[in-house]
Amino acid sequence: MSYTTKNFNIPTLKGLSEKQIKVHLGLYEGYVKHVNLISEKLQAVRNGEKELDPYITAELRRRFSFEFNGMRMHEYYFSQFEHSSQSFDEMNENSKSGLTSLTTEKYGNSENFITHIKEVAGSRGIGWVVVYYDSSMKTLHTIFVNDHELGQLAGLPILLALDLWEHAFMVDYLPSEKGNYVDAFFDNLNWGVVEKRFEIVNQISPA
Amino acid sequence: MSYTTKNFNIPTLKGLSEKQIKVHLGLYEGYVKHVNLISEKLQAVRNGEKELDPYITAELRRRFSFEFNGMRMHEYYFSQFEHSSQSFDEMNENSKSGLTSLTTEKYGNSENFITHIKEVAGSRGIGWVVVYYDSSMKTLHTIFVNDHELGQLAGLPILLALDLWEHAFMVDYLPSEKGNYVDAFFDNLNWGVVEKRFEIVNQISPA
Amino acid sequence: MSYTTKNFNIPTLKGLSEKQIKVHLGLYEGYVKHVNLISEKLQAVRNGEKELDPYITAELRRRFSFEFNGMRMHEYYFSQFEHSSQSFDEMNENSKSGLTSLTTEKYGNSENFITHIKEVAGSRGIGWVVVYYDSSMKTLHTIFVNDHELGQLAGLPILLALDLWEHAFMVDYLPSEKGNYVDAFFDNLNWGVVEKRFEIVNQISPA
Amino acid sequence: MSYTTKNFNIPTLKGLSEKQIKVHLGLYEGYVKHVNLISEKLQAVRNGEKELDPYITAELRRRFSFEFNGMRMHEYYFSQFEHSSQSFDEMNENSKSGLTSLTTEKYGNSENFITHIKEVAGSRGIGWVVVYYDSSMKTLHTIFVNDHELGQLAGLPILLALDLWEHAFMVDYLPSEKGNYVDAFFDNLNWGVVEKRFEIVNQISPA
Repeated sequence: MSYTTKNFNIPTLKGLSEKQIKVHLGLYEGYVKHVNLISEKLQAVRNGEKELDPYITAELRRRFSFEFNGMRMHEYYFSQFEHSSQSFDEMNENSKSGLTSLTTEKYGNSENFITHIKEVAGSRGIGWVVVYYDSSMKTLHTIFVNDHELGQLAGLPILLALDLWEHAFMVDYLPSEKGNYVDAFFDNLNWGVVEKRFEIVNQISPA
Repeated sequence: MSYTTKNFNIPTLKGLSEKQIKVHLGLYEGYVKHVNLISEKLQAVRNGEKELDPYITAELRRRFSFEFNGMRMHEYYFSQFEHSSQSFDEMNENSKSGLTSLTTEKYGNSENFITHIKEVAGSRGIGWVVVYYDSSMKTLHTIFVNDHELGQLAGLPILLALDLWEHAFMVDYLPSEKGNYVDAFFDNLNWGVVEKRFEIVNQISPA
Repeated sequence: MSYTTKNFNIPTLKGLSEKQIKVHLGLYEGYVKHVNLISEKLQAVRNGEKELDPYITAELRRRFSFEFNGMRMHEYYFSQFEHSSQSFDEMNENSKSGLTSLTTEKYGNSENFITHIKEVAGSRGIGWVVVYYDSSMKTLHTIFVNDHELGQLAGLPILLALDLWEHAFMVDYLPSEKGNYVDAFFDNLNWGVVEKRFEIVNQISPA
Repeated sequence: MSYTTKNFNIPTLKGLSEKQIKVHLGLYEGYVKHVNLISEKLQAVRNGEKELDPYITAELRRRFSFEFNGMRMHEYYFSQFEHSSQSFDEMNENSKSGLTSLTTEKYGNSENFITHIKEVAGSRGIGWVVVYYDSSMKTLHTIFVNDHELGQLAGLPILLALDLWEHAFMVDYLPSEKGNYVDAFFDNLNWGVVEKRFEIVNQISPA
């Protein structure tokens, strides 16, 4: 089993330079590489091809979450820029998904929802703003996850992921300009991708 | 929005006393209560009914993952004991799900799979062994999650959850007898529940 | 280099059984063992006697904090019971250390200080209440540290450590009786040990 | 009680621009501000001047470690550049401290010690390399601490702190050039400061 680096069809972005995206994609590739590196080692141990102290194996396995989430979260992130930006309202016009009713129910309207995500993005520390869908309650949760793996909601599918590691913006912005980066993220976000994610997980009848 | 404490139809278990389960269910109720408590506070702030320093609000939101996962992980845990235990092989006989082929592919056979989970359960620290399904690769990942929220794999549905907090077994066992508790877990596990979870998430066409 | 398991001269305690202490000391020994185990492996790698992938070495080193703190925090904990309990007031009568003036300045009086520690002990989660001394400000900080290693204050000496892992009390108490355990801790605490720690770090002229 | 932003007498550095240092010092000021902000709120609650839900107070207190360490670690960091760089060997010539014998004992010689720190700096993730002194064993520990507060060794004084958050170098370097930043750190490091720290903590007779 081996994960493959995905290619993202990212157009020219507003407020995020080609260099910024290129540097960031390079870091993403590092996560894919390390997921596979850990997986191979653990597999070799399971197969009896490699001997490792069980204590060491456990630590390697513990670290898998950091690398796996580093990979997966960046895939959520970059694919949100694919093709071209689409505003929440444009998405809503062309769609019959229930996403808008969910955001309305919890956050009042799309503007409030975006304002809320921006506020959560102002949390101090390094990590991600993540919007999850909890099918058991048919509700959204907007969370700040530290690093890649500290605070992910258990078992919930992810609809939106906003990277707030410093590497995500420091090619183009200073730390004090993080708010401008967050604005740029929303200028370029393709809400159609977020909606598509919701449609897929919404197929499931709740457990 | 308010989460409700679930009732679990748990039969008499082998090697896990009624008192142990009762104490454990009491802790689960504490998580549900605190999920709702945080949710209400955050909602009141969003609605303008309550004023809280944004810094405080952010910390409250950050802690939500601990309480939410504390609630949700226990729901995965207790529902695995419902009705009556079912061995992996019994589950496999009556089923056409692809779960067995997944476990075979990664772990060789069901016995190795269970041995593997037990080995991961031997990781030092407090937390959970969690088996996730990654639909993008059609593979399983068996991970040790620290506490409830440190190291959860991003966005992946959960098939199996084994609680390794000390409260999960210390009514009946000493810390040095953790292995006996893990054996008892598997003696009582209803693999049919695990399979049912897999069937539900397997409905989804991969993103 | 090899750390040695310390022996603690612990009298019969009130509200903490011999069995509880024995089980707990057994866990402490596990930490000492694993500190040495990691140290030996890392040393062997540094000496070129053992070859390990640098990625694996880094993970082993990262985990050192868990085991080292698991060892050290338990040493702070058990030595607080040595010889015989001494109340804050008894300690204060026989002493000329500035500890009392510190606690008075921050918490009002010794009773409030103990009430405060008990309140912090009520924080949800697994970990420790730790009282640190910051010589740069000549002040105390009372903190809840998660697990053993999440949230320790950088570089500050430790005056008091109260173990709130479930194994610290679940031989004698249920999780719902944690408050009784905390009371028992204070019934048995030798405040003279805390003061002695303060005297030692107070020798230092601030950096 | 209120912490004050320290001023550091930092000369022109090699490989670290004035802008980089200025931006970084700005972030340091944010930590001092937030340490005071949390302290004031907690103090007001203790004094009965402010009412806060105890759950909220606990979360605020839990977060204190992040802000406090963010402040303190940056103070260790910046003061290491003060006055002018001093190599390990220059430091050693003018000194009678036992620091060199400690580094020799554990790492062989000063060159190996520096190589070792650089290797630890290559650990994946965001955080710090920290060199601690354990007086009970008269030995050094070189650790990678995640973020500011995850993995700090309990109660040990800090001799050296190397910042590996992306903001520490991304004004001047790309993430892929982290090694060059680490080299620049050592080009500018005043080992005399490290030695002075050791002398101070070495005054203490071990507990």
